[in-house]
Amino acid sequence: MNKIRVELGERSYTIALGSSILKDLGKSLERFDFSKKAAIVSNPTVYELYGKKLKSSLEDAGFEIIEIILPDGEEYKNLTSVEKIYEQLLKLRFDRRSVLIALGGGVIGDITGYAASTYMRGIDFIQVPTTLLAQVDSSVGGKTGVNHALGKNMIGTFWQPRLVWVDISTLHSLSRRNFLAGIAEIVKYGIIWDSAFFDFLEKKRETLLSLNPDDIIHVIKRSCEIKADVVSRDERESGLRAILNFGHTIGHAIETATGYTTFLHGEAIAIGMHAEAILAHEAGLIGWDEVSRIQHLLKTFGLPTGIPSGIDLSALFGAMKLDKKAVAGDVKFVLPERIGRVRIQGNISDKVVQQAVMKALST
Amino acid sequence: MNKIRVELGERSYTIALGSSILKDLGKSLERFDFSKKAAIVSNPTVYELYGKKLKSSLEDAGFEIIEIILPDGEEYKNLTSVEKIYEQLLKLRFDRRSVLIALGGGVIGDITGYAASTYMRGIDFIQVPTTLLAQVDSSVGGKTGVNHALGKNMIGTFWQPRLVWVDISTLHSLSRRNFLAGIAEIVKYGIIWDSAFFDFLEKKRETLLSLNPDDIIHVIKRSCEIKADVVSRDERESGLRAILNFGHTIGHAIETATGYTTFLHGEAIAIGMHAEAILAHEAGLIGWDEVSRIQHLLKTFGLPTGIPSGIDLSALFGAMKLDKKAVAGDVKFVLPERIGRVRIQGNISDKVVQQAVMKALST
Repeated sequence: MNKIRVELGERSYTIALGSSILKDLGKSLERFDFSKKAAIVSNPTVYELYGKKLKSSLEDAGFEIIEIILPDGEEYKNLTSVEKIYEQLLKLRFDRRSVLIALGGGVIGDITGYAASTYMRGIDFIQVPTTLLAQVDSSVGGKTGVNHALGKNMIGTFWQPRLVWVDISTLHSLSRRNFLAGIAEIVKYGIIWDSAFFDFLEKKRETLLSLNPDDIIHVIKRSCEIKADVVSRDERESGLRAILNFGHTIGHAIETATGYTTFLHGEAIAIGMHAEAILAHEAGLIGWDEVSRIQHLLKTFGLPTGIPSGIDLSALFGAMKLDKKAVAGDVKFVLPERIGRVRIQGNISDKVVQQAVMKALST
Repeated sequence: MNKIRVELGERSYTIALGSSILKDLGKSLERFDFSKKAAIVSNPTVYELYGKKLKSSLEDAGFEIIEIILPDGEEYKNLTSVEKIYEQLLKLRFDRRSVLIALGGGVIGDITGYAASTYMRGIDFIQVPTTLLAQVDSSVGGKTGVNHALGKNMIGTFWQPRLVWVDISTLHSLSRRNFLAGIAEIVKYGIIWDSAFFDFLEKKRETLLSLNPDDIIHVIKRSCEIKADVVSRDERESGLRAILNFGHTIGHAIETATGYTTFLHGEAIAIGMHAEAILAHEAGLIGWDEVSRIQHLLKTFGLPTGIPSGIDLSALFGAMKLDKKAVAGDVKFVLPERIGRVRIQGNISDKVVQQAVMKALST
């Protein structure tokens, strides 16, 4: 088993990474001071596939398990789902040393972490991410939250898990489309932090698509290492951490402007990264050859890179202004200077942003 | 102006304490890095009295102010009120450097702090407590939260204010009954931490009841110092901080069993402190003379000390088991060993608790 440590003082934790390790989670919890009540939070699809195995593992370790099954989909990432969790925990008298276990993708992880952070002023939770996107991104770093009718992830907390448990065998049940959406966030790490990793991804298309365990473990591990490194230096996104949002300012705005129905999150981020690379070029930061290389790698993995030409542009620009990184209406962009290095840049004129968006429209 | 520092590393803050200082808040915010958007959260009664003065002070300092007025009363301390705040903040595009200002008693402070802690994963807030209870207790220490149909304060966070601004002139508009309820928490600090302070309260009944500014400032200051000292040593209540809950295990249970309509919080805590002092005596920890001295001081201030004889005892005992300090069903009590010193004690048999409760019933 591979282990990556996220160094955050008393909030430090381990990301454990391996193949077919779901059954070992219960045993590994002995070293924590949890009381013996645990809730597995999941959705029907994932729970059907992996719930039984996880539950047995925890019961064998002496835990009394309750199951909280939420409907599947981003549209249920809201306070109503969180309140369902509160109600179960209160009815079954979960106390401050009880633990929540998020079994699923990013939606389940974000909701569960948020519920854990606000139940009795904060209880422990564990991430068991089952999608590639959650394994390399949302399960690590302690961002929790739910959507509000007026904005995505607007309600949330920073609340670190006590453990992240990544079993790559869950990827076999993931659709190809969802798998590729996860690749988009992996490509992001190469662009923002590690050009050698970007090179590796260019070379390994075939083995990654065929789920070669060594290569899959390598890319998840490297992604988690980079995220852990960034988060350790800036847990609450007062500066550096914002680089993890490369592609997300335009990507989120595309999701909002298309009503979250057209693209998976990772797909929108692929388009957003390409558009923000173009913006970096428009701002004179990066050469066109590198923009093309980014676009090419994304396309190689079957990811979209063009903003749909039919998009509502005013909705798109409006959503950008609501980005959580914006201060007093000034949107901060994360822009690549070269592959492997980005900077955070405010005060970009609306005109330059519009030019970049127009160039990024698929024709 | 008096200043007390709450030492919590990068989350440290100042409690400013004085008479007629509401008008000076705006100026004092210049040293913070807030953006110029601020929301005053209050209720109609308090806002009518002090809203205008506070708003002018902030506007003079260059802030753009929105008012969020919530209905008055503990029954509105729930997620519905929090969602009203979120909606206003999102509509008016509050960003991560905007600030919330809680103007009111404990209910307003708890709701506002909770909203601040969960909006965009946490923004700043300032406490401007206008009741004695809030000035000596709930505005300091970072406990935020709302009630759930299944339990009081069950949803919440630890989220420290950036500043606490205590203007004792607001006490002139407080009803006598609410003022005395605040005295209950002040008596608590004497019992748990400082016997000389307890002596002082025994001597100063008259001047405190007549709102003598020097004595009022002294007792608020000393209460805040004690709370700051305890919270600095144990911010998240992993140990020591639980002593601040003296009187609250039985006090909260009385509030629950009487549907929150019979007693003010401070009154229930007065009864709870007396009952828990009796429990300490039953457990062989403290002499009866000290129990009587505690009861006498509370009565001197017109506070109730007997559990109402008509109370639903099964509801009372049931509510105790749900106390947030309970672990695996074992309720931890905070029990005085003498005036000025308490200990946290688990494993007290139901029989001993019942005996103490029977003795505490008013006959």
